[in-house]
This record gives sequence, C-alpha cells and structure tokens, in this order.
Amino acid sequence: MYKNRRIFRESRKVILDVIDHIGVFFLAISGVLTASEKDMDFFGGYIIAFIASLGGGTLRDLLLNTDVAWMSSMSLIITVMLGATIGIFFQSSFREMRKTFFVFDTLGMSLFTIAGLQKGLEFDQLPFVALLLGVITATFGGVIRDVLCNDIPLIFRKEVYATACISGGGIYLVGTYLGFGNSVPLLVISMSVIVIIRTLAVWRKWHMPLVKNVFNKK
Amino acid sequence: MYKNRRIFRESRKVILDVIDHIGVFFLAISGVLTASEKDMDFFGGYIIAFIASLGGGTLRDLLLNTDVAWMSSMSLIITVMLGATIGIFFQSSFREMRKTFFVFDTLGMSLFTIAGLQKGLEFDQLPFVALLLGVITATFGGVIRDVLCNDIPLIFRKEVYATACISGGGIYLVGTYLGFGNSVPLLVISMSVIVIIRTLAVWRKWHMPLVKNVFNKK
Amino acid sequence: MYKNRRIFRESRKVILDVIDHIGVFFLAISGVLTASEKDMDFFGGYIIAFIASLGGGTLRDLLLNTDVAWMSSMSLIITVMLGATIGIFFQSSFREMRKTFFVFDTLGMSLFTIAGLQKGLEFDQLPFVALLLGVITATFGGVIRDVLCNDIPLIFRKEVYATACISGGGIYLVGTYLGFGNSVPLLVISMSVIVIIRTLAVWRKWHMPLVKNVFNKK
Repeated sequence: MYKNRRIFRESRKVILDVIDHIGVFFLAISGVLTASEKDMDFFGGYIIAFIASLGGGTLRDLLLNTDVAWMSSMSLIITVMLGATIGIFFQSSFREMRKTFFVFDTLGMSLFTIAGLQKGLEFDQLPFVALLLGVITATFGGVIRDVLCNDIPLIFRKEVYATACISGGGIYLVGTYLGFGNSVPLLVISMSVIVIIRTLAVWRKWHMPLVKNVFNKK
Repeated sequence: MYKNRRIFRESRKVILDVIDHIGVFFLAISGVLTASEKDMDFFGGYIIAFIASLGGGTLRDLLLNTDVAWMSSMSLIITVMLGATIGIFFQSSFREMRKTFFVFDTLGMSLFTIAGLQKGLEFDQLPFVALLLGVITATFGGVIRDVLCNDIPLIFRKEVYATACISGGGIYLVGTYLGFGNSVPLLVISMSVIVIIRTLAVWRKWHMPLVKNVFNKK
Repeated sequence: MYKNRRIFRESRKVILDVIDHIGVFFLAISGVLTASEKDMDFFGGYIIAFIASLGGGTLRDLLLNTDVAWMSSMSLIITVMLGATIGIFFQSSFREMRKTFFVFDTLGMSLFTIAGLQKGLEFDQLPFVALLLGVITATFGGVIRDVLCNDIPLIFRKEVYATACISGGGIYLVGTYLGFGNSVPLLVISMSVIVIIRTLAVWRKWHMPLVKNVFNKK
C-alpha cells in the first residue's frame, strides 16, 4: 500500500515533468515564430525561444530569492534548443497547424500555472502571492518576449489567457486549503478549468473589457 | 523616558508605513490611468498598477539579494488592488483632479526614495549605492510601467523627478553621516526637499537639458 | 617559485581588472551616445550608461542568486560616471572616431564574456549555462539599453556579436575541461577569437541569416 503510494507519487512527478517539458517545447517554437515575424536573426530566434519558454519561471525564482530552476536542468535547456531548431526549420508548417499548436500551448500554460503556484506554496508564500506566482510563471515569458519584440504585451490587451490561469489557479488554491493539495483529481480539475476557459475564450472570441471602456461596456 | 522613546519610534514606524501605503495607493491609480490610455484590458490594468507601485521596490530587493518586501505584506497587496479598482471606476474623476493627485504622488515618491536609501544603508551598501537604491525604488516602477506600455521611460526624457530624488536623498545621506540618521527632522527636511524641487519643476516647467544639447543650451 | 606564481596570479588579476574597467568605461560612453540619439536628458544619459555597462553583469549575478558585483565596487561606479560624463561632453568627437571606439568596445566585450563564463564555472554551473552566462554578461547590457530606448535589441537583428562571444567562450570552455583553465594563453586565445570574429564580421559585413529566410538563403 505504502509502496504503491510512493510509486504513484513518483509517476505523478514524471507526468508533471513530461508536461513541463512539452510546455517548454511548444513555447520555444512559438517564441521562434514571433522572432521570425520581427525579422530577427538566428541568435535572436534562440534567445526569444529561451525567454518565451523559461522567462516566466525565471522571474518566479528571482522573486522567491531561490536558485533558478532551469539552470540546473540540462533536459529543459535541450528541450528549448530542440524546440527552437525545429521551429526554425518548420516555420511554415507550424503556421498552418495553428490548432494543434494551440492545444499544446494551452496544456503547457495550465501546467505552468499550477507548477508556479505549487512552488510558491512550498516556499510558504501568502496564498494570493502563490497564485500571482503561478500566473507570472505562465504569462511572463510571453510578456518579456513581447517587450523584447517591441510590442505591448499581448496578454495586457487581448487574451483571456490570464483570467483562465487565475480561475484554475484559484480552484487549485481553494482545493489545497480544503486538504486536497497535491492530489491528482485536484490537479486535473484545475488544469481542465484553465484549458476550457481559454479554449472557450478563443473559440467564442471573448475579450476582457478594456480599462477605458468600463462604463461604456458595462 | 526610554519608554517614551520606544513609543515615539513605534509611532514613527506607523507614520512611515501609512505614507508608504498612500504612495503605493496613488501609484496604483496612476498605473491604471496609463494602462487605460494604452487600450489595455482589466488584467493589464491591474498588472500595470502592481508594477508601477511595487516594481521599484522589487528591483531594489532583487539587487540587494534579499526577500521581496511586498510579497509578505498582504496590506500592500490589498492597497494596490484597491487603488487599481478605484482607479478603474473613477478614471475620469482622477483625470480632472490632476493637482490633488500630484500631491500624493510626490509625497509617495519622496517616501519611496528615503525608504529605499534607508534599506540600502541597513544592508551595509556603499553610500552612493544606497542613494542609487533610493532613486531606483522611487523611479523604476514608472520605468518598467513605461517599458511595458512601449514608451521610452518618461523620467529619461522630461521630468526633474529623479533630480529631486537625488537631491533629497543626498541630504538624507549627509545627515545620516553627521549622526542624524533615523531622526524625524532629517526625514522631514529631505522629504520636503524632494517635494519642493519636484513641485517647483512642474510649476515652472523646468527640464533637465537633453544629452545632445549639452553645448547648444549651455 | 611558489611566490612567483602568486605574484603572477596577482598581476593577472590586476590585468583582468584593468580590462574590465576599460570595457565598462567604453560601454558607458556608448550608452550615452545612444541616449543622446534618443533625445534623453542628462539623468537618462547616466542611467543608460549604467545599464549598458553593468546591466549584463547584474543579470548574471541575479541569475546566480549572488551579490551584484558592481554594488560593492566604488571603482566600477566611478568608471561609469566618468565614462558617461566624458561621453556627454565629447559626443561629437566620439562619433567621429568610431574605429578607435570599436576596438575598446570589442576588447571589453571579449573580457566580459570570459569573466561571466569564469564566474559561472566558479558557481558550479553546467558548462552550457556558464557559456550562456558569459554571453549574457557581454550582451544583455546592450539588450536592456535597447529595450529602454524602445528599439528591438540590435544583437537580435544584425550583429554577429553574440556568435563571436559564443565561439570564444566555447574555446575557453573546452580549454578549461582540458585542464588549461585560468591560464593566460587560454585567456588570450579565446579573447582573440572573439575580437577577430567580430572585427571580421563588421569589416566584411557578415550577418547572421534571418529566422524567416532560413529556406531562401540556405
């Protein structure tokens, strides 16, 4: 029984790790595509791939005043290099299969949110701060990418991206305080909420109201 | 006598804390107004509010390699959320009462400068570095806000903002080395210098000379 | 013999320190020239000088979760202030002597790469991460400078800058693992490679291929 639980826990860790690498892989590809549109060269492409995929987690670790996670993980670094290289050579194909792409990107993002939140809790942060760290992990890679590409970050203008992260992260947080922390069902539910909200938002073209339209639209 | 001093010290701490929260509150409102002008959505508005009000202190704490202060202060976080929410709902009113706004913004900025400098000294930094940390605390929230809004930071182009911080901070620094550190009169004098210089500068439309005009204007 | 070696080691440290300060000095001047072109004021000029010359090393130290090096080095700070001041008053002369300028800039950059890499190794980082830290030390001052000036970072678009750093840094890394770490010949060779590649690249107008042209140009 106990042994089973350990095996179960180990396998859960492996699953999370796999999803983490998938998320990084797809964010690296998406970083390269952005760099390509901005007329960047190869070096710029790889750097943007790194920042888009690992930037959010880096900022989280800096804020937590702890070691930056990817710096001791050769497998994450190789995943980024691989994603960027594949992204460079199959740019046009990726642009055509936007939908497949979207699925993995959203999956990675939902995992990043929960992983960041979980790390915040492990570092004894306030619940709200842990939630914030989850959202930062999932979104700030894209924010720094857009800043380096000289755009106003996309998620500040258009996407329901962050709202999805906050909702799913909030459910995970409540679940944790109800005693279901670290359990697989809670993980599945909160990640699903993120994926569903984002998918619905993109499908139905939901947008957050603009700050300046608060009276007109409401 | 001793007990009085302790009460006095405690009350000073409370006063500083109150001004700190006021500064954060007003910088959050001002962040939301900027986000509104840039066509950002609600999420973007709250993020810019966070960064404009707490970004300078965050950078200071990262440079000091210490824990980020606001992350363990729920009251600061609530103040930002409150400021941002009020900013969103009363945008037009705030735009009309620019002058009242300016007073609190300047008060907050002067406090941020001294608080940052003081923290630098407590961490045994070089005097010049402590002064720099004070200026960073007061100004870099605005710098990151402008970068995220895709503008060249305002204080690099127009305002005498930083000069005011450096002057007041310099006086506080000299006073500290003359043995008046942590005393209320020194605090009042150096904060007043910041407020007076900035107010005069905005009123009389003083500008720093541009780098490229150094020979033409001098 | 042992004493000689110590003297030798000391003198090597002095030489590295001198080159480090020269690199910082010239990057500060180049920062001021950029600020001037962007219509910044004096304060902006000094800040950009600071960031262009010390920003890369700052980011490296933040990522290493250690104390930021320049914050305890008054001589580095004075060097920046001096470089920025001289840059402001002799702007036009510096614009004319681009070639002399280029030599020192390249020398500083090559030193920054090796110094960053070496520091990474001293902090027991993975070889690839140490190389990355070297490149970050040499290039990210310029990246943050360009972001603050509202440009897409130059090195992501045009220069072979980073490729030069990676090549020289790679040689230093291989040499270190072959047992020549910290030796003067290895230092000279790897720094020369950086200088030669960059000089050739600028002279022969080499560019990295753009991400989007991968099929057209290859």
